[in-house]
Amino acid sequence: MTQRSAAGTGSPTSADVARRAGVSRATVSYVLNDTAGGRVSEQTRQRVRAAADELGYIPHAAARALRAGHSGIVLLTAADIPFGPLFNKFYAELRAGLHAHGYTVVLYGDAGDGNDQGESAARAWAELRPTAVLAGPGGSLTPRSAELLKRSGTRAVITLGGPPVPGAHALLMDQREVGAVAAEHLLGRGHRSIGVIVPTDHALDLFSLPRLAGVRAAADSAGTGVTVARLDLDYTETAAAELAARWPGLGLTALFSYNDEFAMLMMSAFQDAGLRVPADVAVVGADDVMLSRLLRPRLTTVRQTPPGGGNLADLIERLIQHPDAPLEVHDLATSRIVVRDSG
Amino acid sequence: MTQRSAAGTGSPTSADVARRAGVSRATVSYVLNDTAGGRVSEQTRQRVRAAADELGYIPHAAARALRAGHSGIVLLTAADIPFGPLFNKFYAELRAGLHAHGYTVVLYGDAGDGNDQGESAARAWAELRPTAVLAGPGGSLTPRSAELLKRSGTRAVITLGGPPVPGAHALLMDQREVGAVAAEHLLGRGHRSIGVIVPTDHALDLFSLPRLAGVRAAADSAGTGVTVARLDLDYTETAAAELAARWPGLGLTALFSYNDEFAMLMMSAFQDAGLRVPADVAVVGADDVMLSRLLRPRLTTVRQTPPGGGNLADLIERLIQHPDAPLEVHDLATSRIVVRDSG
Repeated sequence: MTQRSAAGTGSPTSADVARRAGVSRATVSYVLNDTAGGRVSEQTRQRVRAAADELGYIPHAAARALRAGHSGIVLLTAADIPFGPLFNKFYAELRAGLHAHGYTVVLYGDAGDGNDQGESAARAWAELRPTAVLAGPGGSLTPRSAELLKRSGTRAVITLGGPPVPGAHALLMDQREVGAVAAEHLLGRGHRSIGVIVPTDHALDLFSLPRLAGVRAAADSAGTGVTVARLDLDYTETAAAELAARWPGLGLTALFSYNDEFAMLMMSAFQDAGLRVPADVAVVGADDVMLSRLLRPRLTTVRQTPPGGGNLADLIERLIQHPDAPLEVHDLATSRIVVRDSG
Repeated sequence: MTQRSAAGTGSPTSADVARRAGVSRATVSYVLNDTAGGRVSEQTRQRVRAAADELGYIPHAAARALRAGHSGIVLLTAADIPFGPLFNKFYAELRAGLHAHGYTVVLYGDAGDGNDQGESAARAWAELRPTAVLAGPGGSLTPRSAELLKRSGTRAVITLGGPPVPGAHALLMDQREVGAVAAEHLLGRGHRSIGVIVPTDHALDLFSLPRLAGVRAAADSAGTGVTVARLDLDYTETAAAELAARWPGLGLTALFSYNDEFAMLMMSAFQDAGLRVPADVAVVGADDVMLSRLLRPRLTTVRQTPPGGGNLADLIERLIQHPDAPLEVHDLATSRIVVRDSG
């Protein structure tokens, strides 16, 4: 009742707080934004805070943003790529870590791709005056949009997981290494002709094409006589059955299946086609999600360990604090093979 | 070069635009915020817009928010529950639909739970002056925090997918119906003793407990002689193997496995324990994700069809336009059985 009657039907304003505390609006602003230095007595501070509490006054982030030139928002842009449990854990840690540094993390969709769209996306982000922009993979960040963000007050523009963009810091999670680790394992087992699945969904190109390139690089390092065959595949049972049917004619002995979900798709299709894993075809997945342990035979896969979100928050805070320092590039993830029974 | 030299090293301001266009700052504000009515000539408008373009001037969302009392932001709060492909599609559609209505959708983490946390979360949301808040399941929205949001200018507070909260509109996706549909299918096949998996992860309680209640309600409707056994289960191979080992002693003939992932976990464990699906145990999952078609035997499951994000955006726009209208409750999703080979 107190809260409501004091402010009438509208939201209480700093003028209401000033009236109740018997001080000026400037004093309210000094106290609640902690910009007063020694100019306001502790007694007055307490009176202002008590009045704000009693009225249920909420400061306006926008007003703070206008004063500060930025909002305290760290904008994490994400394209329409699959979220997974790894992302959820990472995001929760990152959010908690940045929150501890006083930032608010908001996720902002990014339809991605194309220079025109890149700049209109960046313009929409810039309107929120984010303190930092973390641009996820598959999005629309361009060198010009990084420049535009910095001119509008963004203190750090950072790519996360995708390819580097000139003008932005780069936090890489090297997808080539995922393919290289899978190939090195198969080459070590004596395979000399390896199929590599590339999903036809272009939203995954940023992952699938570097993974393929990593397989090719490892094959090249192994010397002559190694064949790598690119196999484009829809994520459908029909496409998988068709590939399984023509597998015996391809002359391949092993399959790097892009990820664990595609491994499950192909293992079901191989089983239906009467092919044995790993005797007729060795299969290696990637990501090490739960289903890799539940498949029979259990799936050999590549596990990529992302950084702890907390450590990353500290790194981002440092980049924000030094907006004029040179651009930095960090490789965040490490890949290793998890050997089970499928290849 | 033009852009940079005109504004010096800082971000161009509306004063820069006014100077270049030879008009007052008020005129710049009128034109760029489209609030001028007939008071500014088309020629002047064009001159202001050209100057803004040449300088690369970006209006400040915060300044607009201060004028309007809200920000045009639709805040979608999400707890740390698994995102999935269904959510991604839904979110992309919702974002596109609300964007077409002129809103910006941002996703905001919500650690969830507890009244204290509920109000401090709502306070953080309110600082952004969101036009609407869509509170996802498992979060911290309370009646008091809904009230607090509305007092700070939020025009629509809406729960999405979780239980209704007094003071907020409710968009339900009925989880009881998922359990009821699974149970009705099994009862129709003659099963009279059904096990129901309840994940031990309490973040899933909002889904798992109503699903269990739906099974119980369907069993009660079927009359006497039907047993429903609650089976709490960790999402680990060890826990699944232990349950499979004691299955023959439980006297149950069918399992509703909470979702498709738990179905896969249990089917692998049943297979390892020498139990046949569906001869020794019928298994029904829920969600109808891709793996339900890839399991052998193929999984019978419950498919819940969420609303199109575009339709939902229209509904939300209507709620925003009528902030004083009575609270509304809508049930968005429909459930149906997808019969395959596992039960």
